[in-house]
Amino acid sequence: MMRTRPLKVALLGCGVVGSEVARIMTTHATDLTARIGAPVELAGIAVRRPNRVREGVPAELVTTDATALVKRGDIDVVVEVIGGIEPARTLITTAFEHGASVVSANKALVAQDGAALHAAAQERGVDLYYEAAVAGAIPLVRPLRESLAGDKVNRVLGIVNGTTNFILDRMDTSGAGYSEALDEATALGYAEADPTADVEGFDAAAKAAILAGIAFHTRVTLDDVHREGITEVTASDIASAKRMGCTVKLLAICERAEDGQSVTARVHPAMIPLSHPLASVREAYNAVFVEAEAAGRLMFYGPGAGGSPTASAVLGDLVAACRNRLGQTTGPGESAYTRLPVSPMGDVITRYHISLDVADKPGVLAQVATVFSEHGVSIDTVRQQGKDGEASLVVVTHRASDAALTATVEALRRLDTVRDVASIMRVEGE
Amino acid sequence: MMRTRPLKVALLGCGVVGSEVARIMTTHATDLTARIGAPVELAGIAVRRPNRVREGVPAELVTTDATALVKRGDIDVVVEVIGGIEPARTLITTAFEHGASVVSANKALVAQDGAALHAAAQERGVDLYYEAAVAGAIPLVRPLRESLAGDKVNRVLGIVNGTTNFILDRMDTSGAGYSEALDEATALGYAEADPTADVEGFDAAAKAAILAGIAFHTRVTLDDVHREGITEVTASDIASAKRMGCTVKLLAICERAEDGQSVTARVHPAMIPLSHPLASVREAYNAVFVEAEAAGRLMFYGPGAGGSPTASAVLGDLVAACRNRLGQTTGPGESAYTRLPVSPMGDVITRYHISLDVADKPGVLAQVATVFSEHGVSIDTVRQQGKDGEASLVVVTHRASDAALTATVEALRRLDTVRDVASIMRVEGE
Repeated sequence: MMRTRPLKVALLGCGVVGSEVARIMTTHATDLTARIGAPVELAGIAVRRPNRVREGVPAELVTTDATALVKRGDIDVVVEVIGGIEPARTLITTAFEHGASVVSANKALVAQDGAALHAAAQERGVDLYYEAAVAGAIPLVRPLRESLAGDKVNRVLGIVNGTTNFILDRMDTSGAGYSEALDEATALGYAEADPTADVEGFDAAAKAAILAGIAFHTRVTLDDVHREGITEVTASDIASAKRMGCTVKLLAICERAEDGQSVTARVHPAMIPLSHPLASVREAYNAVFVEAEAAGRLMFYGPGAGGSPTASAVLGDLVAACRNRLGQTTGPGESAYTRLPVSPMGDVITRYHISLDVADKPGVLAQVATVFSEHGVSIDTVRQQGKDGEASLVVVTHRASDAALTATVEALRRLDTVRDVASIMRVEGE
Repeated sequence: MMRTRPLKVALLGCGVVGSEVARIMTTHATDLTARIGAPVELAGIAVRRPNRVREGVPAELVTTDATALVKRGDIDVVVEVIGGIEPARTLITTAFEHGASVVSANKALVAQDGAALHAAAQERGVDLYYEAAVAGAIPLVRPLRESLAGDKVNRVLGIVNGTTNFILDRMDTSGAGYSEALDEATALGYAEADPTADVEGFDAAAKAAILAGIAFHTRVTLDDVHREGITEVTASDIASAKRMGCTVKLLAICERAEDGQSVTARVHPAMIPLSHPLASVREAYNAVFVEAEAAGRLMFYGPGAGGSPTASAVLGDLVAACRNRLGQTTGPGESAYTRLPVSPMGDVITRYHISLDVADKPGVLAQVATVFSEHGVSIDTVRQQGKDGEASLVVVTHRASDAALTATVEALRRLDTVRDVASIMRVEGE
């Protein structure tokens, strides 16, 4: 049974993702109609620069007044692909107030204000979907929220930023340093002119917050996520990783504590064994491991960014939101009933790989080993190398709390015989 | 807002999967209640052998009268984990007639009668979910049906049977023959006493039918799927694959024809390059590639069978079905609007790897090459090896229709100089 009045969609933003959403809505209208059960119509497109030529985007739909568009009152679904906190937040809230459901690709906003947005949507009996906010086209939000709704997720571990994975992959394959690899990423369009959000881990941290919240049915915001970027990863770190049979990846890791009473979320570069499936995720691809009590280990892999892949995720949500409107229902909203607190980074249990430049004299190893032991950190392996009166020690620890490991490193720095702590990197995925 | 009357669930079957469903429903009741929005209660468990001890399964709920259970009238959701066509089909139909939604793990039944079951569910305004029927815990049905609802899937290619993957993996790593590897799989519990459904490809073909139907929004039944098992794969095939930088996998492949006007679905062993992500899927794991127009290439990986993983998928569907009942709505039903026909195997475009035992005399290669050329099949590489008056030729073709390749092989068999067509295997994943 087709209803005759089409569902009306307002598109906010018409950049790389938005223009692809508009294009697919036009070229695949028949399929969308069949899958939704009613025709769906692009009612307006809000942009900042109306004169820019956008191929395949109907010029008569373009407006600069986004607020008026979301206030029209006849809009069924607002698709927000502007990004950033404002004006996106106000526009989304206004859309809810005027009875529209919202599909967003905005990881920063959802990571910061997801709870308030969900509450606003629920109050109005409308939907908020954001599959596109995490890992582009890879279905993650829906599988975590719906497919695993009867399971208990204990861990989410993944590569969720394509730019940094491209850079680290280049450093690994070519031996290039960080800035050289960043230049290549910029030249090829994998990194933006200002790469801060990617290379400092903000983008990945926002995704980690969203994933942790959904996976553990609690609230995790961007501020709860421990964040380290890749700007200090050196060619020598990558070489060290190789010697260990590892590679370096920027990982987003969300874990339930062993006692089940808290969760952690963090983003940092880490060494992972080459045998781990995430080690073979190349270039700008994303991949996420999910470990659940009954399901075991699942992996989701695909293009984590780009206009088309992100548009695919947006359109999947759009179909869901439209179907819900036709059925006068809503999809699953926020599920944060566990209220599990987010523990600080110090509570995380992990392993360290530490390179020390030390004086090449007897007793140094014993001194260093004592420091580890005094902090309750057990050593897995030590490799010692002498060179011209200096020596280097590479220590890999067993699992210990990040706090104990940090304290150990601080104590090592205070040793006279330790000239420099050349690098510290966590070891994951074992 | 919690409603006080709990949702009632009838469980049909209490084997490996059913007992795990019952266990999780009991131990994780609080979580399920929070996620559904109402308590969910196991109202009855139908089994064939009531006296078998089932740990953690409340004995007072056990009955041998499955029909009476689904006819009770107060059941919200029937979970069917019996398997096979009857009595599962009649019980599911009866459940619909009595107003219950159904969650099934039954690939054979859905592959054979999915359309009729969907119609029966729709008529009664209830749900039919079957994520567990395909690739165990790996979310595939929901991502294809919902996450990619706004995209156009062109290809699904995957390893969807754990038993055969275990056997082929063993043959690859140890050089064992088929029967030796099957014995090991049986001893370790990866193969059933009667392994026919797995090793002859019936299980994978049922999954291919389900995946093709959902991916292409059309109807594909088990009979539409070209099926070859792994019983004729030899140690020598595996060795040949290795020489080509390939490995042998039993693949389920669903494709949209290049002109978009038909689809194909097939299950057969094939050589795939070691560089392809599916090549590194070991033991009894499953993995499925999905290629969509906008999303690009996605991969889903995880345990494809087993009590707990399958129960995880069942419970995810159970939560969805329960939520829908509370919201007085239903999830997306069958989407088969494209009515794309399923083409026969002869229309499939693929590549062949053919080993020939030939007479070791001049002109044989020219004769063989002429046969290929006469059938319009272009040769990619030929490797020739002489041994004591006999010689072997290994030919790898470019892409051609399966019909042309089959005709070529028939013509080769008729050549006097061809003593034997030692093996024929398709080459995929490039």
